Amino acid sequence: MKHLALALAAAGLLSTAFAATPKKAARPAAAVVPKKTAQDILAGSPASDWRGLDPENTLLMELATGQVIIELAPRFAPAHTANIRALARGGYWDGLAILRVQDNFVTQWGDPDGEDAAKAKPLPAGAQAKLPAEFSVPLDKIGKDAGFAKLPDAEGWAPRTGFAGGMPVAADPKTGQAWLAHCYGVVGAGRSDAVDSSNGTELYVVIGQAPRGLDLNITTVGRVLKGMELLSGLPRGGAAMGFYDKPEQRIGIQRIRLLAEVPVEERPALQVLKTESATWTQLLDARRYRGGWFVHSPGYIDICSASVPTRPRP
Amino acid sequence: MKHLALALAAAGLLSTAFAATPKKAARPAAAVVPKKTAQDILAGSPASDWRGLDPENTLLMELATGQVIIELAPRFAPAHTANIRALARGGYWDGLAILRVQDNFVTQWGDPDGEDAAKAKPLPAGAQAKLPAEFSVPLDKIGKDAGFAKLPDAEGWAPRTGFAGGMPVAADPKTGQAWLAHCYGVVGAGRSDAVDSSNGTELYVVIGQAPRGLDLNITTVGRVLKGMELLSGLPRGGAAMGFYDKPEQRIGIQRIRLLAEVPVEERPALQVLKTESATWTQLLDARRYRGGWFVHSPGYIDICSASVPTRPRP
Repeated sequence: MKHLALALAAAGLLSTAFAATPKKAARPAAAVVPKKTAQDILAGSPASDWRGLDPENTLLMELATGQVIIELAPRFAPAHTANIRALARGGYWDGLAILRVQDNFVTQWGDPDGEDAAKAKPLPAGAQAKLPAEFSVPLDKIGKDAGFAKLPDAEGWAPRTGFAGGMPVAADPKTGQAWLAHCYGVVGAGRSDAVDSSNGTELYVVIGQAPRGLDLNITTVGRVLKGMELLSGLPRGGAAMGFYDKPEQRIGIQRIRLLAEVPVEERPALQVLKTESATWTQLLDARRYRGGWFVHSPGYIDICSASVPTRPRP
Repeated sequence: MKHLALALAAAGLLSTAFAATPKKAARPAAAVVPKKTAQDILAGSPASDWRGLDPENTLLMELATGQVIIELAPRFAPAHTANIRALARGGYWDGLAILRVQDNFVTQWGDPDGEDAAKAKPLPAGAQAKLPAEFSVPLDKIGKDAGFAKLPDAEGWAPRTGFAGGMPVAADPKTGQAWLAHCYGVVGAGRSDAVDSSNGTELYVVIGQAPRGLDLNITTVGRVLKGMELLSGLPRGGAAMGFYDKPEQRIGIQRIRLLAEVPVEERPALQVLKTESATWTQLLDARRYRGGWFVHSPGYIDICSASVPTRPRP
């Protein structure tokens, strides 16, 4: 019965659509029946719709199982991303570990001895222990000039949503604020009770249903571009809140480097689709208006149900 | 810096609130600042708000790593759940395997030799090879009498949502149909291109962001009550669509039994919170209106961001 599995897989991966109407309709009419698959759209995309990795805004995390590539989002958290750059340059995470994997929530890494002032790893030169909270930024900084592509589909968590610079963004025109939303694969900086108690040394990544209730409550700093399965497919921790019970269960981090510090010839040849591109707009439509295997087309999408593609540099 | 992690953990797990207003507000006023934590609400819940496991609607899956408990939802898929009962009674899955783990999508199990008619495991007596599609049911079957508790919070995927019998439910009053929505932990029956090509032999569970685009396209049959981390925390498969490359990577299923076939003394002493209870309503409010660690209260919730609690029978 394996063919059943294959069909379901195809349904999830290869949404098949290309249509005009952007607004949610009760059910798409015959006119918006999909013409192109996501695969076709990607195959036909112009080179100008793709961009490379920014060496100053990319982290390479090395685990025994492989490499995780994280893109920083300085537009949303300038102080935190600057500190994360300094921490990576100083080798702060090298030899530290993944401490916690809580099912349907987050995987988190940092210093296992962080609670013990005598044993805690000192911060490298240039890294700050104390930063301001960066839960949101003025919406006008995430406007058209920043490539903010607003989704027409309404959702309940925020009055406005879309994508900017490859990141899922929520905003509230009433407060004039925008923020990097807690979608699958988004990376944030753990904090204690004080809003300004995060400094980027402890980072987490969302591995389950988007915990959008955390939005505006904690600083988000970027998104995993590649290697997400190395962080999500880990055994869950048995202690409270997903911490590993025993030190030997922790997953060691070999090192985390800023891409700018990596020799050019060792840098991953990865490209990211521009979210201001026509290709991205078409891919979103391909998920809104489904055909082929699908007998019902949702006519809808939200920012956490579409993930920005990457590809090897051609 | 471990304390940062702990605070974030608490934020995710122990939402702190108890408030009156059910409608989404721009931002909760002082009057709806939380008074009770989720822990307090659960601790104070009356015994009558909990129910036991229905032996005819519960599957026990045994893996080398532990036990997974799945609750079937016959109200949404009467033919499929009847067939799944017959398959379990006949020991169909015993010795079969988890074949596929696709990141941010599904874990799926069945017969590794299912594609090979000569080697495929035969169906046990009483199990059907062919079933009707059961993508939705008449909404009036999931009405007040069935305990359908409508959420006041609007979302984009369906015009109406709520909970019934512990399951996340979406509905469309215009079509008069209701369905068990694809939230984290929901179990469905894989199908091929034909809408009536599923028979329950291949089952999948959602392990990432709710793939609500699958709603109304495939038959959903229940929800994992316990042991979800044994299905979600598995290495992702390296082949296309998350299939394991090599047979030895597959995770063996020792057996799947219908609870009714398990000796009474061996049955798990687990209770499920009734979604028609006041305790559940309070828990939803505790997630809508946050306090304590939270400086921003979302004033909102959706069916896939709240999971129905279980507890050991007191």
